[in-house]
Amino acid sequence: MLDSKDISGFYAELSQLNRDDYLLIDYLFETDENPQVAAAQLACEQSTVQWTISGESIDLRGKFGAKVIELKMISSLDQPKKFQCQAQIAHPIINFGPRIPNLLSAIAGEGPFYCPGILTIKIVDLHFPPSFLNQFEGPQFGIKGVREILKVFDRPIFVGVIKPNLGLTPENFAQRAYEAWLGGLDICKDDEMLADTSYSSIVERCRLTGLKRKQAARETNKEKIYIASITDEVDQLERLVSQAIEGGANTLMVNPFFTGLPALRFLRKKSSVPLMAHFSGMALWDRSQNFGLGSVPLVKLQRLSGADIIGIPGFGPRMKSPPEEVLANMKACLEPMGPIKPVLPIPGGSDWAGTLASVFEKIGHVDFGFISGRGVFGHPEGPRAGAQTIHQAWEAIHGLSPHSL
Amino acid sequence: MLDSKDISGFYAELSQLNRDDYLLIDYLFETDENPQVAAAQLACEQSTVQWTISGESIDLRGKFGAKVIELKMISSLDQPKKFQCQAQIAHPIINFGPRIPNLLSAIAGEGPFYCPGILTIKIVDLHFPPSFLNQFEGPQFGIKGVREILKVFDRPIFVGVIKPNLGLTPENFAQRAYEAWLGGLDICKDDEMLADTSYSSIVERCRLTGLKRKQAARETNKEKIYIASITDEVDQLERLVSQAIEGGANTLMVNPFFTGLPALRFLRKKSSVPLMAHFSGMALWDRSQNFGLGSVPLVKLQRLSGADIIGIPGFGPRMKSPPEEVLANMKACLEPMGPIKPVLPIPGGSDWAGTLASVFEKIGHVDFGFISGRGVFGHPEGPRAGAQTIHQAWEAIHGLSPHSL
Repeated sequence: MLDSKDISGFYAELSQLNRDDYLLIDYLFETDENPQVAAAQLACEQSTVQWTISGESIDLRGKFGAKVIELKMISSLDQPKKFQCQAQIAHPIINFGPRIPNLLSAIAGEGPFYCPGILTIKIVDLHFPPSFLNQFEGPQFGIKGVREILKVFDRPIFVGVIKPNLGLTPENFAQRAYEAWLGGLDICKDDEMLADTSYSSIVERCRLTGLKRKQAARETNKEKIYIASITDEVDQLERLVSQAIEGGANTLMVNPFFTGLPALRFLRKKSSVPLMAHFSGMALWDRSQNFGLGSVPLVKLQRLSGADIIGIPGFGPRMKSPPEEVLANMKACLEPMGPIKPVLPIPGGSDWAGTLASVFEKIGHVDFGFISGRGVFGHPEGPRAGAQTIHQAWEAIHGLSPHSL
Repeated sequence: MLDSKDISGFYAELSQLNRDDYLLIDYLFETDENPQVAAAQLACEQSTVQWTISGESIDLRGKFGAKVIELKMISSLDQPKKFQCQAQIAHPIINFGPRIPNLLSAIAGEGPFYCPGILTIKIVDLHFPPSFLNQFEGPQFGIKGVREILKVFDRPIFVGVIKPNLGLTPENFAQRAYEAWLGGLDICKDDEMLADTSYSSIVERCRLTGLKRKQAARETNKEKIYIASITDEVDQLERLVSQAIEGGANTLMVNPFFTGLPALRFLRKKSSVPLMAHFSGMALWDRSQNFGLGSVPLVKLQRLSGADIIGIPGFGPRMKSPPEEVLANMKACLEPMGPIKPVLPIPGGSDWAGTLASVFEKIGHVDFGFISGRGVFGHPEGPRAGAQTIHQAWEAIHGLSPHSL
């Protein structure tokens, strides 16, 4: 642990710092040391672990050291000398620059998770200065752009995950999407486990589903979106972007927790259509209550990396997310974030026509995607009838509470 | 939950399956349902969630369904009807192909972590068929290649993390590495938080440190390695590979848990020098005891992605890794893996000359990197003296137990 004389170099007043130079990170941690020492140690381990050189009179903490800005003891836990604390740390942006993997290596790498005196720790929020946000491309379309493609402005966007999710021929797949579009879905999407597979290549699936998308749009006189899942090794992404868009997909999806968030940002620079980020793998980072990287910072990082649509675990009991967390994640998609556009949140998990009313009631506004898989594609009368049930459910709600729309 | 009539389609005998077609995954999970139903549900959720189409006589489970191969109830937990189970699941490779992000999306995505009836779940091992391994490039050098560069065959490789880790000018940085090489280190490396920063660009740092590396090699008549940290956004990697190698780095490091494992595999195809993968962020995936993706499968995936050197949390108390886990991770680096070369494990964390004997005793062989940061670079007489302490410690051990070498 740090000596008492070294600790002050890892503390600062926010008002004394140039706000543009620092990322603010909210940590929750437990310690069995003096919380003031533990918090300084946390700042030290995630920045300049050794700040002097024997025989030289330098101190690297001023420019390169993370600084504790705020420290609150939330509770003294049952054990004697065990404290639950909340700390805000200002981390110098010079240590990582406008680059997500480097930012994460500082705030969520070896430093915090192997820090002496820190028993368990979770990153609960991130606050970026505008000058930092300006260095990111951010979403190209955002929720506004997605709504403009669909010309749907006054209700939730109706989304379906084409099922069976794996194993369908491209012909069958496209036909089922077509039926669901005719039944009223705005968006049909690939399951996040589907990709450019041997039995359903991106080329063939996007060609056939793209044709059906355009046909459905003509026949219904409503624009439609097909989201193709292009999760793959990173050197395949540029090829897949071209193939998927040429074929007829007009939105692309990746699983950034497995491709890496940099793959999402790379796609932002290469894609001419909106991007969706799926939460596959997010549980590894955010599920533990007192450990890891919370969903709100993860949603913010996906938005920063250029996702126009962010899939998050929704309200269903299967999704293991308390309603307040779902709502906080949706807020992180929609709230102002300097030059970074608001994006469309899709809270997902086992929803169907019968849950739309309660989902809408919890959310309280229409800026979300309502997503259903088996609820549409497992309907005994087929996907068209399945999709119609979603519209019927919405009309029932609309009829009941027109003013809330 | 699945109906009893649907369950059998998610079970199989391993002997009835074509081994080349399946990845075997070992899960540990807890359930408050009938374990046989819960395991089938787990196989279902990670593969073909809907396997029939209304009105058609298809069943997609045969070719696309994951199958429970083995199920053991380890213990009945304190609560009534709560069971701890071990399951081996055979997952059809056709669902993801030889692609890490797609493999992870199947085995560690929405399926397992949001599976009805599964309270908590951890992936503890992966077993790949040879035909699958053949489709990966694997490490280009491996431990043998790294030893051949250094011409060090009969002892651990001595590695130092150049400190202060952040904030040094390239000149100071190169000079400190030079001193440590003269003192006897084989490898000097960047800290994983350092990268291509505004105050120490890859171009300038690698040029100066590369010059000092060659100078140290000439003066000591021993080959030396400088590992440059090039963690960055993925579209910067190819540039950084060229700049770092041209400058004089002869090994490159990334933090694949934050760049994404695909970035590591991409580097494998682009780099003419060895690659090191650092464990920054690994704790997010593997730290929780009953949840997530264990370190052994993660080491295997890094090896598969082409890392020649894998940094893992070591034995120090700071690293929160039981000794048996460190040893299992080292085994995953070194054990036979079909065509995928054995790689150099570097168990790290707060080691110095004084811990070498106990680290060596725990490991019992010389095939590892012994890494020190402040133990070398924080030495009051400077990095050269610090590096000499490591050799002195090794000579003392060598003198004591020549036969174990």
